Amino acid sequence: MDLYSGYINKLIDELAALPGIGNKSAQRLAFHIIGMSSARVNRLAETIRNAKEHVTFCKVCQNLTDEEICPICRNPSRDNSVIMVVENPRDLAAYERTGRYNGLYHVLHGAISPMLGVGPGDIRLKELLERLRGEEVREVIIATNSSLEGETTAMYISKLVKPTGIKVTRIASGVPVGGDLENIDEVTLLRALEGRTEL
Amino acid sequence: MDLYSGYINKLIDELAALPGIGNKSAQRLAFHIIGMSSARVNRLAETIRNAKEHVTFCKVCQNLTDEEICPICRNPSRDNSVIMVVENPRDLAAYERTGRYNGLYHVLHGAISPMLGVGPGDIRLKELLERLRGEEVREVIIATNSSLEGETTAMYISKLVKPTGIKVTRIASGVPVGGDLENIDEVTLLRALEGRTEL
Repeated sequence: MDLYSGYINKLIDELAALPGIGNKSAQRLAFHIIGMSSARVNRLAETIRNAKEHVTFCKVCQNLTDEEICPICRNPSRDNSVIMVVENPRDLAAYERTGRYNGLYHVLHGAISPMLGVGPGDIRLKELLERLRGEEVREVIIATNSSLEGETTAMYISKLVKPTGIKVTRIASGVPVGGDLENIDEVTLLRALEGRTEL
Repeated sequence: MDLYSGYINKLIDELAALPGIGNKSAQRLAFHIIGMSSARVNRLAETIRNAKEHVTFCKVCQNLTDEEICPICRNPSRDNSVIMVVENPRDLAAYERTGRYNGLYHVLHGAISPMLGVGPGDIRLKELLERLRGEEVREVIIATNSSLEGETTAMYISKLVKPTGIKVTRIASGVPVGGDLENIDEVTLLRALEGRTEL
């Protein structure tokens, strides 16, 4: 729309290009930003630039960090004999929020997807294998998503790791806690049935 | 959480402080931004700063613009005898999207709210009254929200404007087009009943 002149439209366009921000929220955000104090606007712009400039990947687990080795990998009280493999930093954050997992992580930054042309060489698998050689790892827990890509990746990793003798496990899929059975898709229901455990 | 080190957390916090962005989306956005090219990140930061620096209020209608007088007020083909009063630029944009309103606007930048301590002096009413003195206005359409604050503001403006002899109207409230009656709240249903028109 030619409702607004250049600077506003440019801001709306930049914001709308971010994930999960539609045109309407972009407009709302743009107006909000313009209404903030100059000091806050400068701080926001600076924070964005700083994050990009200083944040890099942990040399060990590949999670985002602004140090060479991230706080989790550096933490001596974590169990370094267990590595949980996740697709992205958000998944790592989700498990950290549970507060109950005390092992280390490995972030793949993606999943194998022949459809999207993402092969094993495009995710951080090489780095995982190197870790398995060097460290004294007892178990690799594969916590990729329960999607086609996640399952493909899990199978692939499992085949790679098994010959090393290290135990490979996969997190369970099934009915979410608190979920009403009637609202859950059939594939999940079948998975939950297959994965049933004895009480 | 101390999951991430300074730069990432700062970015997440800045993003989460924006309206409509929860903690989870802030995290998602932050990771996305860090993954963008440096050129795009710089452009985003620059666009934010530029918008704040160059965007100001139209001297006539108070909408956001980067010129002295906005494109709508400057447009000679618009009917300058009708002014629609809205609470904020988003509401103006909503009516512009209909493509069917050809009059001018006046943006209040807020609504009277005794609860929140927003009085008539805190919104751009003075500017509206000045316009009514100067221009040849036939009708003022009050399109503030259908909320307590919006209605209070509408009543207040109506009382101010009526003595000038200019016609004051209020947009209709009722059942949204395409809305299922069963999903609509009772207040709206009663409004729709009161506002019924003969067929």
